[in-house]
Amino acid sequence: MDKVVFTDVGPRDGLQNQPRILSVDERLSLIAAVAAAGVSHIEVGSFVSPKAVPAMAGTGELVARLPGDDGVHYSALIPNRKGYELARDAGVKTVNMVLYASEGMAQKNVNMSIAEAEQATRDILDMAANDGIEVVAAIATAFCCPFDGPTDPGIVRDIVARFIDSGIRQLVLADTIGAANPLQVRALTRELVEAHGAAQIGCHFHDTRAMGVANVFAALESGIYHFDGSIGGLGGCPFAPGASGNVASEDVIMMLEQMGVHTGIDLDALLRASDLAENLTGTAPGGRAKAWLGPWLAKQQEL
Amino acid sequence: MDKVVFTDVGPRDGLQNQPRILSVDERLSLIAAVAAAGVSHIEVGSFVSPKAVPAMAGTGELVARLPGDDGVHYSALIPNRKGYELARDAGVKTVNMVLYASEGMAQKNVNMSIAEAEQATRDILDMAANDGIEVVAAIATAFCCPFDGPTDPGIVRDIVARFIDSGIRQLVLADTIGAANPLQVRALTRELVEAHGAAQIGCHFHDTRAMGVANVFAALESGIYHFDGSIGGLGGCPFAPGASGNVASEDVIMMLEQMGVHTGIDLDALLRASDLAENLTGTAPGGRAKAWLGPWLAKQQEL
Repeated sequence: MDKVVFTDVGPRDGLQNQPRILSVDERLSLIAAVAAAGVSHIEVGSFVSPKAVPAMAGTGELVARLPGDDGVHYSALIPNRKGYELARDAGVKTVNMVLYASEGMAQKNVNMSIAEAEQATRDILDMAANDGIEVVAAIATAFCCPFDGPTDPGIVRDIVARFIDSGIRQLVLADTIGAANPLQVRALTRELVEAHGAAQIGCHFHDTRAMGVANVFAALESGIYHFDGSIGGLGGCPFAPGASGNVASEDVIMMLEQMGVHTGIDLDALLRASDLAENLTGTAPGGRAKAWLGPWLAKQQEL
Repeated sequence: MDKVVFTDVGPRDGLQNQPRILSVDERLSLIAAVAAAGVSHIEVGSFVSPKAVPAMAGTGELVARLPGDDGVHYSALIPNRKGYELARDAGVKTVNMVLYASEGMAQKNVNMSIAEAEQATRDILDMAANDGIEVVAAIATAFCCPFDGPTDPGIVRDIVARFIDSGIRQLVLADTIGAANPLQVRALTRELVEAHGAAQIGCHFHDTRAMGVANVFAALESGIYHFDGSIGGLGGCPFAPGASGNVASEDVIMMLEQMGVHTGIDLDALLRASDLAENLTGTAPGGRAKAWLGPWLAKQQEL
């Protein structure tokens, strides 16, 4: 437990679930604030239909305006081949795809079966290998599906086994609706790390049921060191009214730093990014730890 | 991990930190709502100077008006011998005392040294044995002290070793300012459970730094099964402006129930108690999971 690679997905998974739609300039300012805190990986947007997800319109322009030489790994979500081509043409170096652990979510999200979504991912893996583009895939509903109920861990194990050697950079267990509990997380991540090591496996938690931080700890115990979070806890879930979003980046990073796990992230700058996220979206979900962290950091600076 | 004994400390640790002071009637209504949810242990108040802690004035009257035959274990905090006598005379069957793992907190809280506070507890243990009253002791600043910094786990181990066979019912590791992280919690609780078993050891966490639920999980992994929490997350900390209070009872109980640990507590009734806590205090700290839990429970009832 001495290092963690952290991806902030707020500019994508967070903003797409906020009522207020940000301009490309506003989205870029948020991304810059997160990068300035030392976050090495940021999911900046998605190449989806602007009619379906208006908050993600202009992601091509946004990608073109990202700094090219700051050492930050910027990625974008793509739902299909068309999205892949748009992302590639915009200059994206890492594309994020979605695999499905439940038929219900695969149908609802992309109108495909699990097998069809896997074939689409394989096709894009082939193209990406030719184009020199990295592919990361989230496994949606890895713990629970809002349509099909609890997910059989065997389904997730099989998906990981099918894709771990496919040339994919990382497979991310996504607790899409924030339903996982730390016992489940510990059991599944332990099995997967024992079978495949931790270098290619990540975890993505939501804080809907207050277990996001506990789930990060449980996965960390299994050896997982790739985690997603969202600045300011931006997000929400269309299937759970009133639910909070992704686990807040500042909550995760603060816990890791306090446990002596080095993240390379400056908490003070991360809090400023969180404040910006709140100001821009106006919904202020906020990390749970912020109320304490702000005054504490101010006091540290006085000393 | 098949049972948990849960103590709601909201009517004491929660209310004493709220700006609004409740009447004895209001406090009794909150206690009744928590008891109605199936919580078996409730800390109902403290016998301290009403000048020092106005929110706890009238605890003698409150205790006299508690139902005597509902099977719920009601306890009250006492700071010293005078408090003990008031509690005994009011009919309290379990008194909670405080031991200290840091000199700074012992001085600030009761103007005693660690050793003097231990002697006061021993004196009261003798009286309580004669009077047939149970004693529970919290070990304050068991992980960190706002005055002295991080606590040496060896100090806590020694306190536990000195008191485990003293006739005390339970020793509760109290993360007084919500500074513990799950790695620390796991390490200390594992050592203590290995040395003494778990029957007499409890944990009391605050959610100041968003790690309250993760700390419960870490302690549970070590075999701890006595936990404190506060209805609606009532509380706060005088040493951390803006900080949240005790870990919310509904967040803890929801996690436990979702992991298959039986608590005997009705989540629906617990949420109603949480709503009452918010309404009475007007500060609505609220459990993190409430936003999700309410709609979910409503949906379950429709099915």
